[in-house]
Amino acid sequence: MITNKDCIFCKIIAGEIPAEKVYEDMDILAFLDITPINAGHTLVIPKEHYENLFELPDDILQKISLKLRDLGKAMKEAVGAEGLNIGMNNREAAGQLVPHAHFHLIPRYVADGYKHWGGRKYKDGEMKEVAEKIKKTIK
Amino acid sequence: MITNKDCIFCKIIAGEIPAEKVYEDMDILAFLDITPINAGHTLVIPKEHYENLFELPDDILQKISLKLRDLGKAMKEAVGAEGLNIGMNNREAAGQLVPHAHFHLIPRYVADGYKHWGGRKYKDGEMKEVAEKIKKTIK
Repeated sequence: MITNKDCIFCKIIAGEIPAEKVYEDMDILAFLDITPINAGHTLVIPKEHYENLFELPDDILQKISLKLRDLGKAMKEAVGAEGLNIGMNNREAAGQLVPHAHFHLIPRYVADGYKHWGGRKYKDGEMKEVAEKIKKTIK
Repeated sequence: MITNKDCIFCKIIAGEIPAEKVYEDMDILAFLDITPINAGHTLVIPKEHYENLFELPDDILQKISLKLRDLGKAMKEAVGAEGLNIGMNNREAAGQLVPHAHFHLIPRYVADGYKHWGGRKYKDGEMKEVAEKIKKTIK
């Protein structure tokens, strides 16, 4: 198994640092975030050390995706939340603090006061231009 | 195919409303968000109408998870971003505006100024109690 001795999440997986684990199998661990947006905020991680989304192999990513749905549903029900955010930050520029791929499951309430970032409008012609650039990179 | 005649995303899939599409296959459509957080902000949706994460069947969810990685990587590269957020809002309380399951791929930059919500600390004993409740609901 790929592991990184300096990684705090690898240490949680190895049992060297305590955590409130809520789910564990061969490939995946889920535990509570210690600074939750709302109580129940859960992190879901692969047990192997991959830095971010881009490094995750197909099988692990597919297994995690099903767990996000099933654990998210159970956690939301357990804490009596009204909604659920999935979040994943990849690289420091996106707010990633621990360089071991992790998904956030965040329970939400109508009245919890958290606001999403507001978007902007594209300038004339900009949207088509950006779409063309992306399509070329995908091909 | 499950479709909803009042759904704006189903209308985009059917070609009744225009969109800047960047990727399409049998099961999945990806197109630019019209009010992007940063240019390139992409929405990835199942072509069948499912309201949210909880309704997504295994096969569709697994296919989408791989596309989030691959399209996210291509889009990030195409616009020259430094990071990538995945986001998914489930139910209105979580900020979901269109009730057709959709994932956000948001390109990010160190200097773009977007801040993540700050968490709080659990009270004494609260964290263990919350974890126990979640574990019971999962079983």
